[in-house]
Amino acid sequence: MNLNPDWIVGFVDGEGCFYVGVYAHPEMKTSYQVLPEFRVVQHERDIQVLYALKRFFRCGVVRRSGEDRYELCICKLSCLQEVVTFFERHPLKTKKNADFKKFARIVRWMAEGRHLTTEGLIDILETVRTMNRADREKVEETLLQLKVQSGQRDSPPQVEISGTR
Amino acid sequence: MNLNPDWIVGFVDGEGCFYVGVYAHPEMKTSYQVLPEFRVVQHERDIQVLYALKRFFRCGVVRRSGEDRYELCICKLSCLQEVVTFFERHPLKTKKNADFKKFARIVRWMAEGRHLTTEGLIDILETVRTMNRADREKVEETLLQLKVQSGQRDSPPQVEISGTR
Repeated sequence: MNLNPDWIVGFVDGEGCFYVGVYAHPEMKTSYQVLPEFRVVQHERDIQVLYALKRFFRCGVVRRSGEDRYELCICKLSCLQEVVTFFERHPLKTKKNADFKKFARIVRWMAEGRHLTTEGLIDILETVRTMNRADREKVEETLLQLKVQSGQRDSPPQVEISGTR
Repeated sequence: MNLNPDWIVGFVDGEGCFYVGVYAHPEMKTSYQVLPEFRVVQHERDIQVLYALKRFFRCGVVRRSGEDRYELCICKLSCLQEVVTFFERHPLKTKKNADFKKFARIVRWMAEGRHLTTEGLIDILETVRTMNRADREKVEETLLQLKVQSGQRDSPPQVEISGTR
């Protein structure tokens, strides 16, 4: 199966996902790890489309994702830089493009190593919190902890704690 | 927003649906009405993509489809003939193409008026029963009734009735 750029843009406008996960990781200096992912999920009947996309981008892994679904997942930073270059050259037409632009910014910051400093990580999370698929509650909580840690903000005041009663 | 054919094929490979509904309709000679539909559903944030598709095909209606979703629905026969011509010229790459080919066959049969005869309707239902989104139980039941009506088959034998106990 040969794919052309416009078909890929249309298909990803429908089925693609640009996601940035932020996970606690005690061995990182900042205590958090940032994992951006480009994902396309399909029913197993269309697994050959995922392999065609993998061949096109020369990147990623096709793996099971639920009972009868598979996903192509591209998460290696150098590969994501290629993906970003592609979708900057061939822009998405849906509102997914707004998320993509934030994703692209984060991938660039990571290529510069900014995710390895608390300040850079705060910038990344400030961007992630506005993305469509973000787990906002978790992102806000992590942001607060990082800001306290970096001295950008005092420890949560008493009123916030009593607010949870 | 300007759409090009390859983008449309990719997007419809992801988000499009070719559906053929068969509904009881006492005023039809066959007692049934066949309604093929080409549908694309989107979150309301991307309603402009549906309008762009509507402009491209110069057909269809954009309407609400659930709480925060909208759909482009093309169901007029002359419009569906245009849609069929487009996707024959620009084939889908996913397994959705198998459903599309059956859909195209049914649209052609309807243009010839075959859905207005019991024999034609049986051919249509024999095709619909193999399509991905078909309500198989309902289609089988309708097929059985039509075959009995046309004399292609006797009334359901006793053993089938007792099988439902």
